[in-house]
Amino acid sequence: MNSDAVKKYLLGLQNRIVEGLEQIDGKKFLRDKWERPAGGTDPSTGVKTGIGAGGGISCILEEGNVLERGGVAFSHVQGDKMPASATAHRPELAGSSWEAMGVSLVMHPRNPYAPTAHANVRMFMAKKPNGETAFWFGGGMDLTPYYGFEEDAVHFHQTCKNSLAPFAGDLHAKYKKWCDEYFFLKHRNEPRGVGGIFFDDLSVPDFDTAFAVQQSVGDHFMKAYGPLLERRKDTPYGERERDFQLYRRGRYVEFNLVIDRGTIFGLQSNGRTESILLSMPPLVKWRYDWHPEKNTPEAALYETFLVPKDWV
Amino acid sequence: MNSDAVKKYLLGLQNRIVEGLEQIDGKKFLRDKWERPAGGTDPSTGVKTGIGAGGGISCILEEGNVLERGGVAFSHVQGDKMPASATAHRPELAGSSWEAMGVSLVMHPRNPYAPTAHANVRMFMAKKPNGETAFWFGGGMDLTPYYGFEEDAVHFHQTCKNSLAPFAGDLHAKYKKWCDEYFFLKHRNEPRGVGGIFFDDLSVPDFDTAFAVQQSVGDHFMKAYGPLLERRKDTPYGERERDFQLYRRGRYVEFNLVIDRGTIFGLQSNGRTESILLSMPPLVKWRYDWHPEKNTPEAALYETFLVPKDWV
Repeated sequence: MNSDAVKKYLLGLQNRIVEGLEQIDGKKFLRDKWERPAGGTDPSTGVKTGIGAGGGISCILEEGNVLERGGVAFSHVQGDKMPASATAHRPELAGSSWEAMGVSLVMHPRNPYAPTAHANVRMFMAKKPNGETAFWFGGGMDLTPYYGFEEDAVHFHQTCKNSLAPFAGDLHAKYKKWCDEYFFLKHRNEPRGVGGIFFDDLSVPDFDTAFAVQQSVGDHFMKAYGPLLERRKDTPYGERERDFQLYRRGRYVEFNLVIDRGTIFGLQSNGRTESILLSMPPLVKWRYDWHPEKNTPEAALYETFLVPKDWV
Repeated sequence: MNSDAVKKYLLGLQNRIVEGLEQIDGKKFLRDKWERPAGGTDPSTGVKTGIGAGGGISCILEEGNVLERGGVAFSHVQGDKMPASATAHRPELAGSSWEAMGVSLVMHPRNPYAPTAHANVRMFMAKKPNGETAFWFGGGMDLTPYYGFEEDAVHFHQTCKNSLAPFAGDLHAKYKKWCDEYFFLKHRNEPRGVGGIFFDDLSVPDFDTAFAVQQSVGDHFMKAYGPLLERRKDTPYGERERDFQLYRRGRYVEFNLVIDRGTIFGLQSNGRTESILLSMPPLVKWRYDWHPEKNTPEAALYETFLVPKDWV
């Protein structure tokens, strides 16, 4: 168990993803390094948790050629005492010191034919007062198209599957299902997009294997998303497609602010707001009780793509 | 205790507010009547609550002359069994049947010099299995300017104060403070706007008086907000002011989706999403770590207006 190796991997991954996206976009990301003092309050108890000794690097591109807004955030935070909300399901870790690190990214392309994508890889480590340690990895990636293309969904899911193929057990089936379940807007009765993979609490069979799963997922993000961005970024579009994109981005906001556990926990526990909200789209519309007309590409998104299915 | 009288008042109030706004705007609101079958799940237990036998009228104006988006929603819902989340602080009401009704509104004017306003008046009634009943009223109004005008803030607060002046006890001092505390974005360390009044759990000294407070608050909304809308709706503005307005609207979204109890409970408990999200602005921007330049009107908003103070 070596958190330095994980940190080194995550920082390298952030760099590689940012450089890959800069090649596609033609503009450079801002690299914003930040640190924060210890502090922070457990949202469930109001007690100071010791959250806060930490920092990160937020890489952000706004008004790019291809990306209207995209962020790739690395953060590494530590604390003296596990927040109660984090030990509710792990009572044996109450009182442990802990550290968490991860890379999280969301890309909002300008072109409505290019899908939005999200990916995240993270690790949590805890050290009990008696010296015993625990760790778990989590992560995944998912795709949110505005206009659906079957070949894009298939490529994304196939790449997700490839990322998990080297490992024992049918991880892809399990993590794809988990993704479909997690990225779902109950209040809309609607999936966020076409899915991908999602996992959490991974600590078996051992640290090295779990870390290898995380690395493989992280390494496959640009293979999954880069070709789709290249393929769709210059598709001609008009006001209608732009309008639909801005409307659908509202669902992304709703998911991240109402449902996403990482976002809500971060905001409630005194995380760095601007880094957490890198995921927000640059421009968003809401409109009352709007539904696409039948037999339009917009209706096809709902009927064909926002429906969990086996894409590969 | 007469819920029919409350319902009649609320429907009349909705009509009067909509008609008042239509006079200012020049365009008509859509009046959308809806009903829903029983159903719904308690977010804290996953148990079906019986929420849902109910309906409402959502009045909405989009792309008006003055209001870019504005909604005035009446709803009346009933259930067989109080949700656990609602009885956590009222254990004596576990197992009670209940009904809730209210009018809730948010106005997003097009002109950045015209402030956004929110108001809400609501009543909750519960009937215990032994036949005993309980009720409480809640409500308030608050103002969210993009460009601050002292005379607007003073007028709004003075009108709030007037609405409570007929009643015993210094309700205004109490409800103003409650408003400042409630409409606060902890993750931004920022008030939502210049405040107003907010109250909940009002059942003393008796039903008639509590209902009279609710009526007075409801009746004062157009007196508080109408003149501000009239005064600012035609102020010339440019791209800079529009941009700042769209950016600041992001805070409104963050408040409503991350913090507002009514919105979150509604979305989690299978409420009517389109009516709940009438509060969302029509067009919103997010931008990374943006701060206004010193000695600008935008900086003055933060320094002078987004600071709780005694305006009257």
